[in-house]
Amino acid sequence: MKIYRDATQNALRAIRSQKPLVHNITNYVSMDIAANVLLAQGASPAMLHASEEVEDFGQIISALVLNIGTLSPNWVISMRQAQRIANARKIPVVLDPVGTGATPYRTGVATRLLRGGVKAVRGNATEILALAGQALGVTKGADSTDSVEAAKDAAIKLAREYAAVIAVSGDIDFITDGDRQISVGGGHPMMTQITALGCSLTSTVGAFCAVEPDAFLATAGACAFFGVAGSRAATLAKGPGSLRVEFMDLLHTLSPEEVAKEACFQ
Amino acid sequence: MKIYRDATQNALRAIRSQKPLVHNITNYVSMDIAANVLLAQGASPAMLHASEEVEDFGQIISALVLNIGTLSPNWVISMRQAQRIANARKIPVVLDPVGTGATPYRTGVATRLLRGGVKAVRGNATEILALAGQALGVTKGADSTDSVEAAKDAAIKLAREYAAVIAVSGDIDFITDGDRQISVGGGHPMMTQITALGCSLTSTVGAFCAVEPDAFLATAGACAFFGVAGSRAATLAKGPGSLRVEFMDLLHTLSPEEVAKEACFQ
Amino acid sequence: MKIYRDATQNALRAIRSQKPLVHNITNYVSMDIAANVLLAQGASPAMLHASEEVEDFGQIISALVLNIGTLSPNWVISMRQAQRIANARKIPVVLDPVGTGATPYRTGVATRLLRGGVKAVRGNATEILALAGQALGVTKGADSTDSVEAAKDAAIKLAREYAAVIAVSGDIDFITDGDRQISVGGGHPMMTQITALGCSLTSTVGAFCAVEPDAFLATAGACAFFGVAGSRAATLAKGPGSLRVEFMDLLHTLSPEEVAKEACFQ
Repeated sequence: MKIYRDATQNALRAIRSQKPLVHNITNYVSMDIAANVLLAQGASPAMLHASEEVEDFGQIISALVLNIGTLSPNWVISMRQAQRIANARKIPVVLDPVGTGATPYRTGVATRLLRGGVKAVRGNATEILALAGQALGVTKGADSTDSVEAAKDAAIKLAREYAAVIAVSGDIDFITDGDRQISVGGGHPMMTQITALGCSLTSTVGAFCAVEPDAFLATAGACAFFGVAGSRAATLAKGPGSLRVEFMDLLHTLSPEEVAKEACFQ
Repeated sequence: MKIYRDATQNALRAIRSQKPLVHNITNYVSMDIAANVLLAQGASPAMLHASEEVEDFGQIISALVLNIGTLSPNWVISMRQAQRIANARKIPVVLDPVGTGATPYRTGVATRLLRGGVKAVRGNATEILALAGQALGVTKGADSTDSVEAAKDAAIKLAREYAAVIAVSGDIDFITDGDRQISVGGGHPMMTQITALGCSLTSTVGAFCAVEPDAFLATAGACAFFGVAGSRAATLAKGPGSLRVEFMDLLHTLSPEEVAKEACFQ
Repeated sequence: MKIYRDATQNALRAIRSQKPLVHNITNYVSMDIAANVLLAQGASPAMLHASEEVEDFGQIISALVLNIGTLSPNWVISMRQAQRIANARKIPVVLDPVGTGATPYRTGVATRLLRGGVKAVRGNATEILALAGQALGVTKGADSTDSVEAAKDAAIKLAREYAAVIAVSGDIDFITDGDRQISVGGGHPMMTQITALGCSLTSTVGAFCAVEPDAFLATAGACAFFGVAGSRAATLAKGPGSLRVEFMDLLHTLSPEEVAKEACFQ
């Protein structure tokens, strides 16, 4: 697992020195926490979404994160504009298909964005299954009703079909680029009781992809970073309120060496 | 007060086991805290608002919360669509008439939503008075300028006219369905210095109504739950920042039995 | 520096007794924290933005804060409507030109709002330079890439041209009305790793301007208040997560006397 540990350590170090500008066109719920997660780890977040400026802004960004949590037609237009510029500039595009499977509109938009070219996708098992057209259970908004295990084949299929890294979040995360695959442990079940922490992980995948050209290693590193910070934070927290505070502190104070050492690649 | 204590305890237990999907079409300020409050207590929040999907999504939800804090015409269209589906499916609809009385537009929309069929309304005294066409003082945005006592008659009148439970929040909350009425104490004045905590209580009323068919008992239970968690959190907090953290932890850690025992029904 | 200390103390006391209604038409990222910052210090925040109601609401507010962080054409229309009413009523208008210089659209809107009449502007060095048409470095979204020192001349020029107070935030803030000028220290570098804390300072400038007619003293006082609370909070915090919590507590618990005494005017 040395290659994973090294990549994680180097990427976190690079984020802190380069402070990559990560542009998030994301949902309203996640705006505060995703920006704070990026700032705490050392990246520079931006959240603008107007069609009038996303293309100009796209000239100066280092990563683009598209998140459909509270999507609407105008925002989708801006997402597509930003995606085209990012792809033309070979800037990594990361997709969070929040709630895919919950409505036909949502599934359609997620699929369109996926086809438009993305470097990485991060979702829960239910979302990844729905994206692959294999929804098993009944979706429940942003909360998964399927196991990571059940979504592995769908993730590999999607990764190959769209030449993208696919990360399935859960008790143990699963990341694949269709060829390679890795599981990442750590974290704590109570993390699912902090809203938009998954969205914030997707934004973190954006930051890691901004500094690490191998999106597979970058995505695995981001998941490992969250796992280490989450595990440690859970030992200090009394509930989801203090867990969020401790987690944010740790994203800032954990050294790249500590993260590499404690990362649960398996 | 045994019936209230039992209903509160049973509802909280049901929320934690059933994890009802509560759809909030709510204001931007409350998105983060309302979602976190629902997650902490055990419910499953969703915040989407697009006209293109609220009807499809309405097929899988267990409660609908409409909050007009940062309303605009497009969002009102979606609220009305979602409300129609929810009523057709006999899913509880809960209204938070934020700032009613502050502008004619706002008062008009709140009234339209109330007429469209709601199971429960939660607001402060000024909002409830304005909704009943009896505004006394000068409204100040989301902050009440009237006492709960002054809004009791208006609440009873509204409850009878619209066959809805009306909750007036304040130092001591007042809840009525036009026939029955109950007061609920607890909480702490500093809770008014955390933004959107009232909105989050409305979302919690949604969660309680999702599992307790008697909306009067459900609303009283939600208010009691907030009162218990707020009272306890205030003893641990130094100011509104730590109060929010402690409160969120307690929504998660308080057992149904503790809440029932400490609830201040009067 | 007695005049500054006295003005700060009196303004904070007045905010706590008068609870001025501060209307923020602001970005999605800042909604939660800006509202909480205003509530913690004693003011009353409102965040509505609909064109249908901003003019009516403008009749009851004590200050208007315009923030272009996540601007879009509809919101700009509402900002201009609200600005006209506020100016007609001689209510202070405060502008936060977030990310000015990052895109032509953004710079254009900021300039239009500045020309429309504002009492005070608060931005970082890069934003103030861009607003004065003197962008030096490459902008990076909301994060400054220039020093406060480099923006002093631009601030003075802007202040004279638009008869507005200009505040440049940084390690040491610089505030000028084109005639007078003052520097304000305090705070902590980690404050830049809490999203929208700058936006929240702008909202606080709004609250101070609502109660102190001299916008130069008001703006200096708001910056000093943030400096004192930030310095103290940093001594208690482990990282940006706990810094936010401690900071919010201190905005509430610091007495006007303590703030005046510890303020770093220089």
